[in-house]
Amino acid sequence: MSEVIEGRRARGGGGAARRAERTAVRIEAARFIERRIPNLEVLDEEALAIIEANAETVLEEIGVNFPENPGALALWRDAGADVQGERVRIPKGLARALCATAPSTFTQHARNPERNVEIGGRNLVLAPVYGPPFVRTATEGRRYATMDDFRMFVKLAYMSKWVHHSGGTVCEPTDIAVNKRHLDMLLAHMTLSDKPYMGSVTEPSRATDSVTMSGILFGEDFVQGNTVMTSLININSPLTFDATMMGALEVYARANQATIISPFIVGGAMAPVTVAGTLTQVLAEVLTGVAYAQLVRKGAPVIFGAFVTSIDMNSGAPTFGTPEAALITYGAGQLARRLNLPYRSAGAFCGSKLPDAQAAYESANSLNMGLLSGVNFMLHACGWLEGGLVASPEKFVMDADQLGILHHMARGVDLSENGQAMDAIREVGPGGHFLGCAHTQANFKDAFWRTNVLDYKPFETWADEGERDTVALAQERVRRTLGDYTPPPLDPGIAEALVDFVERRKASEPDAFS
Amino acid sequence: MSEVIEGRRARGGGGAARRAERTAVRIEAARFIERRIPNLEVLDEEALAIIEANAETVLEEIGVNFPENPGALALWRDAGADVQGERVRIPKGLARALCATAPSTFTQHARNPERNVEIGGRNLVLAPVYGPPFVRTATEGRRYATMDDFRMFVKLAYMSKWVHHSGGTVCEPTDIAVNKRHLDMLLAHMTLSDKPYMGSVTEPSRATDSVTMSGILFGEDFVQGNTVMTSLININSPLTFDATMMGALEVYARANQATIISPFIVGGAMAPVTVAGTLTQVLAEVLTGVAYAQLVRKGAPVIFGAFVTSIDMNSGAPTFGTPEAALITYGAGQLARRLNLPYRSAGAFCGSKLPDAQAAYESANSLNMGLLSGVNFMLHACGWLEGGLVASPEKFVMDADQLGILHHMARGVDLSENGQAMDAIREVGPGGHFLGCAHTQANFKDAFWRTNVLDYKPFETWADEGERDTVALAQERVRRTLGDYTPPPLDPGIAEALVDFVERRKASEPDAFS
Repeated sequence: MSEVIEGRRARGGGGAARRAERTAVRIEAARFIERRIPNLEVLDEEALAIIEANAETVLEEIGVNFPENPGALALWRDAGADVQGERVRIPKGLARALCATAPSTFTQHARNPERNVEIGGRNLVLAPVYGPPFVRTATEGRRYATMDDFRMFVKLAYMSKWVHHSGGTVCEPTDIAVNKRHLDMLLAHMTLSDKPYMGSVTEPSRATDSVTMSGILFGEDFVQGNTVMTSLININSPLTFDATMMGALEVYARANQATIISPFIVGGAMAPVTVAGTLTQVLAEVLTGVAYAQLVRKGAPVIFGAFVTSIDMNSGAPTFGTPEAALITYGAGQLARRLNLPYRSAGAFCGSKLPDAQAAYESANSLNMGLLSGVNFMLHACGWLEGGLVASPEKFVMDADQLGILHHMARGVDLSENGQAMDAIREVGPGGHFLGCAHTQANFKDAFWRTNVLDYKPFETWADEGERDTVALAQERVRRTLGDYTPPPLDPGIAEALVDFVERRKASEPDAFS
Repeated sequence: MSEVIEGRRARGGGGAARRAERTAVRIEAARFIERRIPNLEVLDEEALAIIEANAETVLEEIGVNFPENPGALALWRDAGADVQGERVRIPKGLARALCATAPSTFTQHARNPERNVEIGGRNLVLAPVYGPPFVRTATEGRRYATMDDFRMFVKLAYMSKWVHHSGGTVCEPTDIAVNKRHLDMLLAHMTLSDKPYMGSVTEPSRATDSVTMSGILFGEDFVQGNTVMTSLININSPLTFDATMMGALEVYARANQATIISPFIVGGAMAPVTVAGTLTQVLAEVLTGVAYAQLVRKGAPVIFGAFVTSIDMNSGAPTFGTPEAALITYGAGQLARRLNLPYRSAGAFCGSKLPDAQAAYESANSLNMGLLSGVNFMLHACGWLEGGLVASPEKFVMDADQLGILHHMARGVDLSENGQAMDAIREVGPGGHFLGCAHTQANFKDAFWRTNVLDYKPFETWADEGERDTVALAQERVRRTLGDYTPPPLDPGIAEALVDFVERRKASEPDAFS
């Protein structure tokens, strides 16, 4: 068992120690996934070679744009690229050679060392939804997200056994000024959870704030020597590296903090409608972004990202859980492994407005593909609704429950004597029953993944209890989880210093709402 | 494109030819899936060898039971097995050697040759749910299934583009006598659809009726020379081959009709709680069943079946879409391929009482595992609810829609010039948009799988239209599909002969309701 049990707390206040013990709530946290099953590889050697050669052709003949970024253009020129205006044409082989200094795996430290994650190799780290401006709850419907919602999602991620990472913008706190909300968001991750987190990328100065606050939390020396943040750098596909995102990347790379270099692709809109064409463009973009990070600082930790969906040609809407997105995700994983880079993709994606069957089909398709494509860092692993416009607490706990399935799948098949179970087959024999046999009794507690949301009750019990659907069960789970929440301990001096920094930083400039 | 378009019909009666043309409904039917992607293999060579050796040990040392079947015991004795009472102990290597005469792939003929399916190899044939005594509809709730329901499901399967097979007991018509319902069921498959179907297995005489009716439909000569039915023979796990099922198997094998030899396993109850232990037992049971079919008639077409779920140790309920069931399904596929046998497993399994998010998570997990484990014949591919107790028309069309995803996934990655799309990347360049480019215009119609159930509308449109969830959308789809239904043409003489046989056969014995 690779699971860590964090601790116990007494539910409710007062009362005898015995009652407290009886009602103790265990907060469990699983270690990140270490796969013992193979990846699914949809491209053969010839296909990979074609796509890799095409990506080099794209970089050399078409090139990429680095708008409003003279510093980047200078770095590229010095590295040997052909720079004309904002356009950077990269000779074949150069970007790939520059990528070689990026580490194939790195540790992201959490303030609780038991929550450290290893990103790369055969590992899979799961993080919550990122970016939704809206929230939908079963009771309130859909509305703009607030800082209170944000804190709720951080608590849910902290309390979710199968979620390894606190994430970043778990929702957009639209009630806080745009130029200050990153401070409140970071403070929430740092104080309400002890899992690793992401930094701000919406402005280079906000990336700097993220590094500064991490210095307060971990100690400046520690942050200089270790990676404590993994932050999301989206590429403005096709082939454009905008100055804001690159500015944030530069701050993080210089501080030796990790970035995800992530083409943001709705196939048919930001990339060709074909799988191979999209993979070619994704590879060209990632090669450029990773190489650029290495130009800024050799050895800076980076992740090969790929956010890919297809488009509904009727409505223009992005679609999720589709076979085309899956083929791209599988293929991109192969390309990432050939570059020896950690890979970010997938998530509990869906287009549905509600946490209904559509949402679940689409999310399960996406989660399965994430596990089997060799993803190392999965953002959006729980809570995503309506194409990422909406975060939902009910969807969050539903998805987080499914993440347990990925953990158990990844364990592979136990072929120990106990796993072979020949004694059980002998004991029971033809026509017998295994429920009572010694082997079953010895193994049943750990044998099967167990849901904490879904319904397995007899029909009559379920009917008597009001015929609850998954949303109703999830509502109950959200309520109980938040009721059980207690924050992880934090040195009061550090907490005070963080609050102090946030207050001073907020007071230093007027609110901006765009 | 591997899709066959069946024909057109005018919707509604009367009116001008032009109006008919304008409102024509195309009934589309996809060809069975031919995979161009690899299977996921969770067992290495050493693991496979251990499981295979253990299965041989089980057969030799523990053996299997063939109760109330002296004929079977005699066949086994003659073949070299050690028979003591009902117990048959099979020397190592014997069962596997007997299996060698089973074909690795076979054609199941349909009365419309365009609907023939190839079972085996890299193919995947999809068939509807089998066996539910209950039906749940969005309007009526849950109730016993009737023959009218049965006909409805046959029509839905016929009209579903991605469903290749009409199936068997798509629901139990509980309003018809137990000893006669197989006649009405077969008549429905034969007249309301032209897709291939399954025969009755609940009594050897009903298997004989199935062969006789197939003779009327296809011509007796044709049925003697060709496989026109694939029927489901469940093994009474652990290690028991009951006389009724074996009687049906014997009828079909002698008539050269295909059977699925299928252990029916709820892990922890009918097999050990471990994956490797269950695989050992599954293999031992299938080796026995397939070998027995070959003893009855060398070369009889058979399928390596594996119906596997895990158990909820709290309630004792079978659970679906679980990681343990997935690992077993992947492993059993590898064992089947090493035996050179077609493989049956998976389906749109779920434990949920409603077609809600739980149902969809569980079903999507199961469908993905079915595609990637190399399944050749997938029963229960649509319509399954509540652990198989319930068939649901809404779930049927929701699942059937998802089956399109399996088709598109299986296509793999197109690496033609057009697939590489270098012209598109050149044309659009950095910062451009692919929607209008020539390559997108030329490819968008076939580029992406398209749902016919799920919602991709803008939020405002969706809200204005009543915030419909997946069940409401599926209800609409069911209504439209049944409205569009017209039966495939059938020679009136054959139809009459079938009805005549059914009437005479029904009149020949009194109704029995158990």
